[in-house]
Amino acid sequence: MKNQTFIPIPEEIITKTLDELTFSSQGSSQSSSQGLIPAIAQQYDSGEILMMAWMNADAVRETLHSGIICYWSRSRGVLWRKGETSGQIQMLKNFRYDCDRDTILLLVDQKGVACHTGRRNCFFYETTSSGIKTVRDVEIDPEDLYPK
Amino acid sequence: MKNQTFIPIPEEIITKTLDELTFSSQGSSQSSSQGLIPAIAQQYDSGEILMMAWMNADAVRETLHSGIICYWSRSRGVLWRKGETSGQIQMLKNFRYDCDRDTILLLVDQKGVACHTGRRNCFFYETTSSGIKTVRDVEIDPEDLYPK
Repeated sequence: MKNQTFIPIPEEIITKTLDELTFSSQGSSQSSSQGLIPAIAQQYDSGEILMMAWMNADAVRETLHSGIICYWSRSRGVLWRKGETSGQIQMLKNFRYDCDRDTILLLVDQKGVACHTGRRNCFFYETTSSGIKTVRDVEIDPEDLYPK
Repeated sequence: MKNQTFIPIPEEIITKTLDELTFSSQGSSQSSSQGLIPAIAQQYDSGEILMMAWMNADAVRETLHSGIICYWSRSRGVLWRKGETSGQIQMLKNFRYDCDRDTILLLVDQKGVACHTGRRNCFFYETTSSGIKTVRDVEIDPEDLYPK
């Protein structure tokens, strides 16, 4: 799978990026030898924050190579090509990282919904002065996202 | 310091929020007994992602109580009342968290700049097909942020 509108990043620039980023063992990775870095996914045109997940070096490399977002699943201990099962893929628009080089910001074009609950984004709980509320509706039935 | 436009969250709702959130030892905390959770700060009206930092339970409690963002500094091992020295505080508008309850999204009103480099946000490095670029200018001289 390729992102057709994406200009692939040359190998030497991918390697330079990986050299700059700080991967740590903070992510309670299944394989403790492999460092992780948090990655925030933001819808590139609306600014909506979709989700936060983790990447290892292989996930960063695949993402910059293909233009399709690939994370590292801490629970399953494998590369997580988001949308591979559900079709809800994220196309890379811009790959940024922060001043400390320990957090990635992915500007993406999300197909469908980002959240496994069928909501557009994962940040739907809100603590307010009158209680904890759910501030976003389900757009796609999770049973349709992950057919049995 | 208080956020004047903020309606304080009642104690029982703060406690319920803390019960819901998952704090882990992932953050390489100085005090390993105290769990941390990543928190993304987003400018509430523009959607700009300002920074990502960490909170412990005390930081969440103080933030929900005062309406002024307080993080946990992993490097210094203390509560980090952002802007206490520089004046670049973040006023809480909305406190959200995600489906897995392991990441916080802070919608804030950032006074001045979020980044210690004097840039509005911390995500100013971008990997492109022609190299790694700096995509944001310094707005305030860091020497003016942290006078000696």
